[in-house]
Amino acid sequence: MEYFYEIEMEVRDYECDLQGIVNNSVYQNYLEHARHQFLDKYGLNFAQLHNDGIDGVVTRIEIDYKDSLRPGDRFVVRLNMTKKGNVRFVFNQAIFRKSDDKLMIQAKVFGVLTQNRRPIAPTVFDETLKAHGLVMQQEK
Amino acid sequence: MEYFYEIEMEVRDYECDLQGIVNNSVYQNYLEHARHQFLDKYGLNFAQLHNDGIDGVVTRIEIDYKDSLRPGDRFVVRLNMTKKGNVRFVFNQAIFRKSDDKLMIQAKVFGVLTQNRRPIAPTVFDETLKAHGLVMQQEK
Amino acid sequence: MEYFYEIEMEVRDYECDLQGIVNNSVYQNYLEHARHQFLDKYGLNFAQLHNDGIDGVVTRIEIDYKDSLRPGDRFVVRLNMTKKGNVRFVFNQAIFRKSDDKLMIQAKVFGVLTQNRRPIAPTVFDETLKAHGLVMQQEK
Amino acid sequence: MEYFYEIEMEVRDYECDLQGIVNNSVYQNYLEHARHQFLDKYGLNFAQLHNDGIDGVVTRIEIDYKDSLRPGDRFVVRLNMTKKGNVRFVFNQAIFRKSDDKLMIQAKVFGVLTQNRRPIAPTVFDETLKAHGLVMQQEK
Repeated sequence: MEYFYEIEMEVRDYECDLQGIVNNSVYQNYLEHARHQFLDKYGLNFAQLHNDGIDGVVTRIEIDYKDSLRPGDRFVVRLNMTKKGNVRFVFNQAIFRKSDDKLMIQAKVFGVLTQNRRPIAPTVFDETLKAHGLVMQQEK
Repeated sequence: MEYFYEIEMEVRDYECDLQGIVNNSVYQNYLEHARHQFLDKYGLNFAQLHNDGIDGVVTRIEIDYKDSLRPGDRFVVRLNMTKKGNVRFVFNQAIFRKSDDKLMIQAKVFGVLTQNRRPIAPTVFDETLKAHGLVMQQEK
Repeated sequence: MEYFYEIEMEVRDYECDLQGIVNNSVYQNYLEHARHQFLDKYGLNFAQLHNDGIDGVVTRIEIDYKDSLRPGDRFVVRLNMTKKGNVRFVFNQAIFRKSDDKLMIQAKVFGVLTQNRRPIAPTVFDETLKAHGLVMQQEK
Repeated sequence: MEYFYEIEMEVRDYECDLQGIVNNSVYQNYLEHARHQFLDKYGLNFAQLHNDGIDGVVTRIEIDYKDSLRPGDRFVVRLNMTKKGNVRFVFNQAIFRKSDDKLMIQAKVFGVLTQNRRPIAPTVFDETLKAHGLVMQQEK
């Protein structure tokens, strides 16, 4: 899979739980931070969209846990974006351990944009990314 | 769906984010807490299983976000357990807002038990629950 | 010390860290939740005060860590409120393990109310609590 | 104040609460991460000390909240270490907003080392740091 963006981060001890590994819920924090940083980079800030009357909302998340990050691990979150049907967009995200590029987490995060509480086509994403040479493929 | 267990909880303000709603990752905390409380009730504590050389691990999570909990909301997490194939077990979980019993979150959490790092059939779950009149159905 | 309020809670596994005990920062969550529940009980909700142009802000926190809560522990957070000088109010808070009433955490949380960004006397706290028979003593 | 170490970090949106600012408890996470990174740098890893039978424990924390970090803010956590009495060590920590070097948080974190559950002098810190030209002053 070709990714649009990557960000490198490091496990912080307080993110680890009793089992000595990063708690399952913390990966959602990593994934969210990567999405927000990616969107910010292209001026697609949710706060800004909100001021234009457009709201983004996550409707579904699927996470496959392949292996666990541990204290001190550095890792890379990679992502791209696709379209599914007319209104849904999808973030395809993966987390790789830095030391050996091993896949830790594979995730799909589904969302929609709404205006006046109705779903709208994610044209603003489509066009902004296209202007930077990034193509949101249509998923089957 | 028939549930095995439910636990009532309340949103804490620090669990809410910028948007004034519970952050998406926090629902995983609620879901995990409900699973652990349920298993504890039947003596299926992960710490105890670990001492018997058996480890439980989450392999996949699917969450549908239907609506958002807000500060002050009370809610109920309900769950049951099914089997999928020979080794996987599944927690079917849902979060309902207390005030109107509206569905907020629908989730499936897949896991396996391992012994000596190899997956084993979840017989310990099956038998313990059966002894309490709870049947883990086989999913297709 | 005489307390105005107490709330009972339970340690959740995800709140524990590598060392198998509740992470130091999580006690601040417990303390904040207890303060908000206490204020809510008397209609002193921060959101509501905000609509009246009054904002509450924590200026300092002191926490003595006496002992550690562990997975499964139930505990009680107790609190009262005092005044310090003309504008500061203080929450005196303590966390006791339920099983043996042992003191785990002793804390002082200092705050001020502001209106138009200037500190004001916490009269709204003083009068509301007095109406319920609770007296905010003056600290030396 | 002269600092021994600094680390630069960035606010993540999920760390912010209803008020649109970093939640008070999150600063403890930042402070803890900075301490662990600093100690790691000099081989003073708590996990490693633990294997030598020495445990570090935080006994008290004092935090003055001067101003609030917001989404997107970059910041620097600085720290040094001092001694207080015979057994206590103190981390003096401060958080500065990167854009204008404005002080956000001033904190003192007190700790002790224990061996066989008894407090011991923090000689291992003292000597290791001295070997790198860093002097733990004695606080009055």
